[in-house]
Formats: sequence, C-alpha cells, structure tokens
Amino acid sequence: MVLPVINELCRKVLAGDRAGVARAISLVENDNPGSLDLLRTLYQNTGKAYRIGITGPPGAGKSTITNKLAKRYREEGRSVGIIAVDPTSPFTGGALLGDRVRMTDVELDQGVFIRSMASRGSLGGLSKKAKEAADILDAAGMDVVLFETVGVGQSELDIVRAADTTVVVLVPESGDSIQAMKAGLMEIADFFVVNKSDRAGAEQAVMAIKTVLNFKSHEGGWQPDVLQAVASEGKGIAEIIALISAHRSYLETTHLLEQNRTRRLTDRIRELVAERLHVEFWTDQRRSLLEGMLVNLIARKETPYDVVERLIKNALS
Amino acid sequence: MVLPVINELCRKVLAGDRAGVARAISLVENDNPGSLDLLRTLYQNTGKAYRIGITGPPGAGKSTITNKLAKRYREEGRSVGIIAVDPTSPFTGGALLGDRVRMTDVELDQGVFIRSMASRGSLGGLSKKAKEAADILDAAGMDVVLFETVGVGQSELDIVRAADTTVVVLVPESGDSIQAMKAGLMEIADFFVVNKSDRAGAEQAVMAIKTVLNFKSHEGGWQPDVLQAVASEGKGIAEIIALISAHRSYLETTHLLEQNRTRRLTDRIRELVAERLHVEFWTDQRRSLLEGMLVNLIARKETPYDVVERLIKNALS
Repeated sequence: MVLPVINELCRKVLAGDRAGVARAISLVENDNPGSLDLLRTLYQNTGKAYRIGITGPPGAGKSTITNKLAKRYREEGRSVGIIAVDPTSPFTGGALLGDRVRMTDVELDQGVFIRSMASRGSLGGLSKKAKEAADILDAAGMDVVLFETVGVGQSELDIVRAADTTVVVLVPESGDSIQAMKAGLMEIADFFVVNKSDRAGAEQAVMAIKTVLNFKSHEGGWQPDVLQAVASEGKGIAEIIALISAHRSYLETTHLLEQNRTRRLTDRIRELVAERLHVEFWTDQRRSLLEGMLVNLIARKETPYDVVERLIKNALS
Repeated sequence: MVLPVINELCRKVLAGDRAGVARAISLVENDNPGSLDLLRTLYQNTGKAYRIGITGPPGAGKSTITNKLAKRYREEGRSVGIIAVDPTSPFTGGALLGDRVRMTDVELDQGVFIRSMASRGSLGGLSKKAKEAADILDAAGMDVVLFETVGVGQSELDIVRAADTTVVVLVPESGDSIQAMKAGLMEIADFFVVNKSDRAGAEQAVMAIKTVLNFKSHEGGWQPDVLQAVASEGKGIAEIIALISAHRSYLETTHLLEQNRTRRLTDRIRELVAERLHVEFWTDQRRSLLEGMLVNLIARKETPYDVVERLIKNALS
C-alpha cells in the first residue's frame, strides 16, 4: 500500500473514524506491508488509553462482563475499544458468534468499537497483532481498551499480560481448580471476580481464592481482592469499575504504571527483534545450505545441534 | 554438568534404564547446560520410535485412550513412552493428578515410561522440550511414543504436529463445535475418535464430522475416518490401533513418513536458530543501547519500529 494511502488512513484513525479504524486493524491483522508505516505513524499518539484485560475459563461470562463494563464506561462519557480474542483451539470455537450476539447492545453505540480477532489461521503473532490493534484504538482516542480472552494457551495469556489492569473471571464451580491457580494465575490477576455468584458455592469459591491469595505476601504492595458478581443482571459491575479505578490510582501513585509499560515496551521490542532476525537470517543462501544438510541429518550422520551451530556461526556481528 | 557425567547418562538412556531416562528428561526440562551435549549424543539413536499424538478438548477421555493404547501395544510386546502435556492454562489444571491416577495400571509395567510435562513455569519452549523428551524416549528404545495433550493453545498444538499420526478425540457433545473444527482441526487430524459414544448423539457427531471432512478433497491421499469408542470399557481400542497401523503403512508406502519427518526437522532447526539468535543478539552492548532509547520511546519521540531498525541494522552478516 502506498504511503499517501497509509497517511490518509492514519488521518482517519486519528480522527476516530470507525471505518478507518476497522480498515487499519485489518491491515495489521493481514500483515499488509503498509501496516508497519501505519503503526509507526500512529505510535506518537498512543499511550493515552487505559488497557484492561478480562480473562477466565470458557463459560465464566467474560463477554457479559466486558459488555457491561463497556456500557458503564460509556455512561461516564468515556469511549471504549474492545478486542475480543478467540482462543486458538478450534474446540472452544463458536464463542465468536456468541460474543457478537451478546455485544449488540453496546455495538450500536458510536462510542464503542468492537473487534474480534481469531487466532485460527494466524499461527503465532496473535498477541503481537492484538497489541497493535490496541495501539490503533488508543491512537483513535479510545479512553479505555478492553482485551477479552479466554485464559487458555500461551499467546492468549500474553495478550492479557499487555493490560494495565487484569481481571480474572471465575465461576463458583471453578473452585476445584484453585490448586492449579496457585501455579499460574496469581501473577496475572490484579483482582478476581466470581461471576454467576447467585449459584451455589459462590461464598466457598471466594474463600478458596482468598486462601490461596493469602499464601502470597503482598507487603506494602497491591492486594488482589475477590469480588462477586452476577453480570447478566448487572450486579457487581459498579464494584468492578471501582476496583479497576483503585488499581489504576495505585499504579499511578507508585509510578508502577510507567514502570510496567516500560517493561512491556522492552518485551515488545524483543519480540519485534526476534521476528526481524528470523526473516533476515533465512536468506536464500542459508536456506540452500540447510537443504544440503538435510540428507546427513536424516541419516543421523549429523545432529540438528551441529547444523544450527554451523548455520549461526559468524552470522551475528 | 561435566561431560563424563553426561556420557554416563547417555549410556544409561541407550540401555533403556528408567532412572537414566527420567534424569535425562529432567535435564532437558530444566534447561540444564548439559542437556545440549546429551541430545547431541543421543540424536544418532533416534528416528526409530513411531510418534503418535492424542489430542482433543478437556474431558474427552484422552488419558484413558492413551492408557488403553499403551496397554495394547505392551500386549503386542512393544515398549511405550508417554509424554502427557498439561495445558498452559491454570484453569484446566488438576488434570495432571487425574492422569497420574488413571495411568497407574500401565505405570507399573516396566515397558511403559510415563512423563508428565507442565507448561506452567516454562514460558515458551514447551513444545521444544516435549519433542526433546520424545527424542530421549526414542533413543532409549521405545517403539512407540505417545504425546497426549489438550488441543487448546498454540504450543500444545505444536506438540501434536510433531507426531507421525495424530488422533483427535471428541465426545458426542462436541458436535456444536464442528463449525470451528472446519477452521483448525482438519489439518491436524489423521483420524477422529468419538469417545464416550454410548452417550446420546454419538451417531450424529460422527455424521457431522464426516460431513465436514467431505468438504475437503483428499484425492488419492489419506482419507481421515471417524471411529467410535467407549475407551473406559476398552471398546474401540483395537480399531484405533488398527487405523494407526494403516496410517503408518500409508505414510511408509508413499514415502510421506520421511518427507514429513524432514519437514519437521527443518522446522525444528528454524526453532533452534531463532532461539540462538535471540540469545546471541542481546549482548550487554545492545541491552544498554535499548535501555538508553527507552526514555525517548516512553516520551513517544521515537517508535519501537525505528528502535528495532537501529538495533538490527548491520547485526546480521
């Protein structure tokens, strides 16, 4: 795509034009060569949106919560971008359509921009693209960007790690996975929501999560809390909004917001470097070199480790 | 770890010593510096094991099927290695323990080696490590290596892609995800098993999968079939074994086995190269260079894309 076209698209994004935003995200999603110029131009206008991650197991009601949060933010006069990421697994598919149906009441609002991104077909690179889509929404002037993704799979969790505040949504029945939570979720969650808490076992689930949380010390730091909600009836939404605000204030006061964003920026540059190194390393010459070595590899006369050694030797200056 | 120790460990692995195999896999799992020497030495003894991937949604009965297949292979006098990979998500955790319990009847058999690998804590690199563990089992003389992993998440699916034959296990209730399967599973599955097919809807599930399969043309090639099973009662296991054999024969006759393995070897070398490039690129000097640029990045005076450009310029020779 030629530069004047990209520049025109940037202008539209910066003006908050919905069609422009949609087109810009598609550009990024499809790895269109112009997307780099687009992101480069938009970058100076990013950093203003507050990014919130909503994650949890399938069926926990993440979409409903995301929807209700978006509505509440709209009532406060804030513009909202939503990036709903489909899980990698084809098994849990179908959620995409479900989300879309449930999202319709906020979708009609011009102050909300919703984008679904599926990981199918975009092998790898999903978390990179989701973050870049967030940059576009940020540059378009969205006050809040919500990432909604199922908490399964590495790249899906990577997306949530890109948020300023991360909310983990569970249901009362998730209680038995508390053991597992010890291992993985504590680092991600800024707080928990036990949704559908009109069901049996909600109190026990809250207690169980709190027990696990108490194993970790949070001296002087942020103490993740556990809220209850029945999102479908709007119950607990105000409390979630309030706790997100409290977490944001905490991050700002302690300068952790800036520190975290700097760390994420560093990670992102490392990702971009890795991607570029990969592309630039595999010249036609190295490709042929590897192809010539395959026969010996298959015959077990040479090992992959020695081949890598030979390929990489003197490659980096 | 010093070379004589590694050599002694290799000797044990090649002799099929269980403690040696367990220790070798731990070495790889913990990224012990000695693991590279170990894998390099063992490589020439790999390529004999037939690798089978068992995947599917949580609760489909993958562990039971894996267990029963292992038993049947043992009855045929074949040795079996099992690599059970825990999903990345902490939500679906607990399966690890469950698998272990269910596995006990084959675990006591000296001809079966079972290893659980959890992705928790090993951010990235899981599929690489699972493949390397399979190499160790292969070098230890296992005739069959079974990968069992939930079909959720990129790295988990990558593991299954490393198998010679991949079996996708579904349950009758998975029927509604057929739409989603169109997008992602068809490339992975060499055949399907509808497990727990004593439940209502089994016939419809089989029909639905077959309908989807028919959308794809398989002219002259392998035609994925759909089997039914009630693995907990041992029903359908013989048929699965027979179809795995048929698929293997097909791959051997058509020389696709060798072609596929060559392709996977190429992919693996690319993975190893990417890893090495990443490590070697980030010298102290480049690290400081990036750190110095962070202030301008945060202030939006420079973009990540330009920083990457500057970092990478002239880096590769």
